[in-house]
Amino acid sequence: MPAATLTAAMAQAAYEIDEALKMLLPPEEGPEAPLFAAMRYACIGGGKRLRGFLVLEGARQFGVARSAALRVAAAIEMVHAYSLVHDDLPAMDDDDLRRGKPTVHKAFDEATAILAGDALQSHAFTVLAEEDTHSDPGVRAELVRCLSKAAGPRGMCGGQMLDMLAEAANAPLDEVAIGRLQTLKTGKLIEFSAEAGAVLGKAPAALRHALLAYGRDLGAAFQIADDILDATATAEEAGKATGKDAVAGKATLVGLLGLDRARLQAERLVLQSKGHLDGFGERADLLRMLSDFVIERRS
Amino acid sequence: MPAATLTAAMAQAAYEIDEALKMLLPPEEGPEAPLFAAMRYACIGGGKRLRGFLVLEGARQFGVARSAALRVAAAIEMVHAYSLVHDDLPAMDDDDLRRGKPTVHKAFDEATAILAGDALQSHAFTVLAEEDTHSDPGVRAELVRCLSKAAGPRGMCGGQMLDMLAEAANAPLDEVAIGRLQTLKTGKLIEFSAEAGAVLGKAPAALRHALLAYGRDLGAAFQIADDILDATATAEEAGKATGKDAVAGKATLVGLLGLDRARLQAERLVLQSKGHLDGFGERADLLRMLSDFVIERRS
Repeated sequence: MPAATLTAAMAQAAYEIDEALKMLLPPEEGPEAPLFAAMRYACIGGGKRLRGFLVLEGARQFGVARSAALRVAAAIEMVHAYSLVHDDLPAMDDDDLRRGKPTVHKAFDEATAILAGDALQSHAFTVLAEEDTHSDPGVRAELVRCLSKAAGPRGMCGGQMLDMLAEAANAPLDEVAIGRLQTLKTGKLIEFSAEAGAVLGKAPAALRHALLAYGRDLGAAFQIADDILDATATAEEAGKATGKDAVAGKATLVGLLGLDRARLQAERLVLQSKGHLDGFGERADLLRMLSDFVIERRS
Repeated sequence: MPAATLTAAMAQAAYEIDEALKMLLPPEEGPEAPLFAAMRYACIGGGKRLRGFLVLEGARQFGVARSAALRVAAAIEMVHAYSLVHDDLPAMDDDDLRRGKPTVHKAFDEATAILAGDALQSHAFTVLAEEDTHSDPGVRAELVRCLSKAAGPRGMCGGQMLDMLAEAANAPLDEVAIGRLQTLKTGKLIEFSAEAGAVLGKAPAALRHALLAYGRDLGAAFQIADDILDATATAEEAGKATGKDAVAGKATLVGLLGLDRARLQAERLVLQSKGHLDGFGERADLLRMLSDFVIERRS
């Protein structure tokens, strides 16, 4: 399959996820409209939708209804978006721009940004728990359990805490500590994104676990590729400021291992991620291409 | 039943809820320990646990296992605690003290406070979605749906947005607008606290709705009583600074209607709340006493 196939499929998925988000987020009406506006601003119309794409492709392996998969994809993207809104706050990374647009606390204000992030997290769970997501409440409860764990103290929030502590300590992390930080901060949510389709499709445990393992290796490769990109791409290519990690003294595998060894490790992870898909047929070809894509991309 | 019975029952419930929180929140171990410490600091050992008490008493009407009710009570208290942590932030109400202790961003720092609030919200949904909460996944999914709605854009977060907008606008709200603000900001969560036991007990719709309606009127009376307390009690009696609402020009029913009419309205709501319990027997006596208590308390 040509690489253009993946690009087209990702663009199509991003479009559908955007439409789902437009429908699922509260419309900008009534006295609370500024909150709803900030939520929509944070979520709609940006990003590659890697997490949402993983949900849709995972779900496709088991013939899950597209409408159900889109709700789960949208819920995960809400959680991802909320984490970016809070990470960008002055008390955290203090970023003014995100994907070329003013961050939420710049476009609105800090209090609205905090609230919009909070409300996005609640709303993601409402979407998962509603009957439209799946007729089987066991599936809905399991989706909530997995997403809340991936986002919570032993997932994304824990990883962000480690990141802040590392920056404050100003002491280099070793490979194990960097691995833990990245697994928690971005890995768990990507892992669940890959796994979610199997939950929706009530897949056999072995296949569910294979998708989770695929997501784990893919997420790790993605993170290294991101760090390599930061170290090598021009800002124009990347669409955002680059070289930030080195300036911030941020602990990355690239900084620790050097570019060449980091690249080798990413390639190894890509191979490994594809290996987990051996039990899947041609239907998983887009997931296999995605593995190659994450280390080949220049933005 | 003497009033001491209620006081003793509330103290007992508060103790058990605290024990449940200690068990359910991550222990202060490992590299993420500062995050876990902030979560525990925000949740454990404070407050009347009105919301948790409502869960336990609601659940008792239907013979629900205490252990299950305590998990739901703890989850709701986690959401309540997270909302206080975020409300206290410099960008929001900028409070240094809460229940006589330094607020989380004072005891830790602002970034940790934001993260701890975020993680508490996620963790509340993990607790609800786990099998230990109820063997029926339909019950777990319904609890998640209701709590996330009560906390989300059309609940607590929406109410906090209205509160901020009212303060920024510096224009007095009318009675309808105040009602909407308070229903969203504090009402919805109290409502669900009263209703949750019926969800756990798979109660008939009429009884579930009666508890919800009880919670709605109780919550409204509680809010007016809080405003009256702020206007009349000494700081010593209330255990916190009083007279803050008038100074901040905050829109309350007391400010709008005056003390006497506000007090009358609270009494009317208390009567009305007890009326919703007519279909319940003596087992609901503590809930009836709680209605009287909310407008009689001096702290």
